[in-house]
Amino acid sequence: MEVLPVAVPVWSVDPRTGKQRAEVGTETTAGEVDAAVRAAAAALPALADRSVRSRLLRGAAGLLEDSAAEVIAAADAETALGVPRLTGELARTAYQLRAFADVVDEGGFLDVIIDHADPAAQPIPRPDLRRYKIPLGVVAVYAASNFPLAFSVPGGDTASALAAGCPVVVKAHPDHPATSALCAELLRRAAVEAGLPADTVVLVHGFEAGVALVSHPLVAAAGFTGSIPGGRALFDAAAARPRPIPFHGELGSLNPVVVTAAAAAERAEQIGAGLAGSFTLGNGQFCTKPGLVLAPAGDDGDRLVAALTGAAAEARPGVLLDGRMRENFLKGVAARAALPGVSVPVGPGEGDDEAGRTVRPGYLVAEARDLAGAGAYDLLLEECFGPLTVVVRYAGDAELAAVLDRLPGNLTATAHLGADEAAQDGGTAAALLTRLSALAGRVLVNGWPTGVAVAPAQHHGGPYPATTSTSTSVGATAIERWLRPVAYQDTPQALLPLELRDANPLGVPRRVDGVR
Amino acid sequence: MEVLPVAVPVWSVDPRTGKQRAEVGTETTAGEVDAAVRAAAAALPALADRSVRSRLLRGAAGLLEDSAAEVIAAADAETALGVPRLTGELARTAYQLRAFADVVDEGGFLDVIIDHADPAAQPIPRPDLRRYKIPLGVVAVYAASNFPLAFSVPGGDTASALAAGCPVVVKAHPDHPATSALCAELLRRAAVEAGLPADTVVLVHGFEAGVALVSHPLVAAAGFTGSIPGGRALFDAAAARPRPIPFHGELGSLNPVVVTAAAAAERAEQIGAGLAGSFTLGNGQFCTKPGLVLAPAGDDGDRLVAALTGAAAEARPGVLLDGRMRENFLKGVAARAALPGVSVPVGPGEGDDEAGRTVRPGYLVAEARDLAGAGAYDLLLEECFGPLTVVVRYAGDAELAAVLDRLPGNLTATAHLGADEAAQDGGTAAALLTRLSALAGRVLVNGWPTGVAVAPAQHHGGPYPATTSTSTSVGATAIERWLRPVAYQDTPQALLPLELRDANPLGVPRRVDGVR
Repeated sequence: MEVLPVAVPVWSVDPRTGKQRAEVGTETTAGEVDAAVRAAAAALPALADRSVRSRLLRGAAGLLEDSAAEVIAAADAETALGVPRLTGELARTAYQLRAFADVVDEGGFLDVIIDHADPAAQPIPRPDLRRYKIPLGVVAVYAASNFPLAFSVPGGDTASALAAGCPVVVKAHPDHPATSALCAELLRRAAVEAGLPADTVVLVHGFEAGVALVSHPLVAAAGFTGSIPGGRALFDAAAARPRPIPFHGELGSLNPVVVTAAAAAERAEQIGAGLAGSFTLGNGQFCTKPGLVLAPAGDDGDRLVAALTGAAAEARPGVLLDGRMRENFLKGVAARAALPGVSVPVGPGEGDDEAGRTVRPGYLVAEARDLAGAGAYDLLLEECFGPLTVVVRYAGDAELAAVLDRLPGNLTATAHLGADEAAQDGGTAAALLTRLSALAGRVLVNGWPTGVAVAPAQHHGGPYPATTSTSTSVGATAIERWLRPVAYQDTPQALLPLELRDANPLGVPRRVDGVR
Repeated sequence: MEVLPVAVPVWSVDPRTGKQRAEVGTETTAGEVDAAVRAAAAALPALADRSVRSRLLRGAAGLLEDSAAEVIAAADAETALGVPRLTGELARTAYQLRAFADVVDEGGFLDVIIDHADPAAQPIPRPDLRRYKIPLGVVAVYAASNFPLAFSVPGGDTASALAAGCPVVVKAHPDHPATSALCAELLRRAAVEAGLPADTVVLVHGFEAGVALVSHPLVAAAGFTGSIPGGRALFDAAAARPRPIPFHGELGSLNPVVVTAAAAAERAEQIGAGLAGSFTLGNGQFCTKPGLVLAPAGDDGDRLVAALTGAAAEARPGVLLDGRMRENFLKGVAARAALPGVSVPVGPGEGDDEAGRTVRPGYLVAEARDLAGAGAYDLLLEECFGPLTVVVRYAGDAELAAVLDRLPGNLTATAHLGADEAAQDGGTAAALLTRLSALAGRVLVNGWPTGVAVAPAQHHGGPYPATTSTSTSVGATAIERWLRPVAYQDTPQALLPLELRDANPLGVPRRVDGVR
């Protein structure tokens, strides 16, 4: 007797009440995932034309803007991130889609290198070699909880994969399925309007669908933004395939901040207030939230902490993205606060709303010497998602260095420096930045890591567990994740891709016989 | 009672006799591997200066040339590859070291992108962002059996890693430990002469040392050239680490060749003779040996096979790199020849030398329809290391397409085309090349894949199992494997790496505000 699978409903939930809002659909079955990947794979040849990709990306940006009110309302109802933040996120997402269209049009990402034949080359004659990059195939995108637009269905992974010429199957995040469905429809409409199959972008729902996706033979690469356990499980599955695939996961980051003695002496109050603004931004739900702040012991550090206390105490309680995150946040705070010697100047914890859905921001203080060796204090070196930061007081360079030596990889690392330090070539501050560059993919001076500019020079990635690869998920070079090089040897002009022909009819940037 | 480890001797063996030549040293113990990696890691800061790296690479090339007679004699005694071939390989290896020195000097590999701050940027103001690439850390290199120089201790993996600024720990291949020790000494001397620690390059011996290396916490990436089982085991170990590392492995390749009906009609004899030359080159021990040749059924294909028979029958027996390879070759040939319908026009097998160490080159013929579905004939789709190729006769495009659909990933794929086909834009030959580009990292027309030119546009890599990543192990872009980007945000000029300062004192190529 055949057992028919029971359709599992996918609910949109209001995190402000914990109540189900609407049934968005059903979880994608294994058979449906297979069909989704095959349909997406069939769109690959149509994406070979770069002008079509560019049209798709610009069209998607336009449709997103046209539907802004509806999309933002859905996202706010599902995430409680608020209309102002989501309005900004939508603008950023549309900007990012267009930025990748510009990347596609410019063509530099193809990395064209042409070496003409050289029969006189030493030690042996050289054939004609022409190399550029081609799309890998279907890309699986795992959407993030904390950016329902910019790191989800229409976000950077999708935009960069489409820019590279790869069809995309997105696994919706369960915290915003209605927003995901809306955005997927817009992307699919943009595909059709650009002359592409609708299945250039396909949406799937459900945990099992996500697991099936990374193991599908026709999936050629994956992009992920989320937790360390979830991301690592998928990374492991990607590596264990008969044919392993690249898995570009952004998993977690502590985003350490070092405040030097000179910086504290000069700007303790400003730094304390700035830190409060940064770690509470978006209710502490940014990948780049500063989670560990190394502040000097002594009076100047005390002033910093006092300013932080003042500002953090004024921060308003907020709703986290879902109930499980709220529970994990409260547990994580309690476990950290229970460590001997850890003090709680502003207690993070449950808010006082009637529905019992909010949390209050707050921070802890620990001693650097407690973190210098492996042990229970390792917990302070793990990310705690939500509005918590930990200030670690250090007495002298040795204590600071000992804590830095224990840090895992990060998306960002920040130094707050005194004016003289910042102006000195080859001094202690330069050595500190070199040390921080070994810990992170982005190094900041006198700023805050929250906020990730979409720009060609951006790098949003870092040593594991920040990222499972050496790639970025934001900025122009994010496109590199979905490409592989192919070289053509001694191939007649008529058979070469247009980008590799001598006449360069598409006008792409190239390096020919060593000359750019 | 403490059990002292017994030192396991490392022997240099003469493959022409199977006899031990000399004891080179002992297998590296776990403790010695740890010390080797730590010593190499200590050399990392000294490699930060690009001019020192360039000096190291040029110095190593010079020392290799100065010691050519000794190195070639050792390599020939251990590998039986012959003095002419090894003389060429040494020249190629020295050329490659200098080519990477040029890459280091030019600085384009740093991928510098600078975006100045733009307070007026939409949708939000943009900070100052400057990005370049930094070395990953200690690189583990696993040397190949079949290129004792060009893909071993002083080969492309080592050269590109040093060029990137990464110290290297090389695991010697057991087939040429004496050559490895000689070359390691030359590299270490070049390091010292360049002002670097000798431990910038460290050599280790033994299977267990190789396993320990890929799991060492301070090893940041690995390069490998070898078999699928060995490479996959190390790839799996690299992925399973608490902190996974990139593993760039070149594992195996069938290097399919497609001969179209038109090509066979025009040049059957020439193609048959060319194939014989290519698959027997270096006794069939090239990663790029054409192992599967799709030739048309019918008279023209018959002429090709006849020419191949004539040329292959004249090929002389030769000694393989070691006794195990010889045994595997003979077993592999026998298993393939035993498949129903597979014929043996020129039987590969044991040579007739007194020592019983040689093998005779030969080839098999199979029918495309037998390979079209999964089953016993899958064996023909696996690489057989040594002087064997398999000609698969196809009747029509459908049979050809069916075999291509079953092929794994490859380093190369080759098309032999008729003159009209080669001149036709957008025709069947163009479609064939597109199909082949999905199967391989290098596509050739009317040539043979053996011989991999060291050139900026080269790509020596391909879909799994050809490579475990999307990278190349030959050519200028091989350096990309050992780097990761770091972005600096709002960092004062005095604290920026020189390559990122406005004045560009080192004159590196950069992309500034969108302009190259």
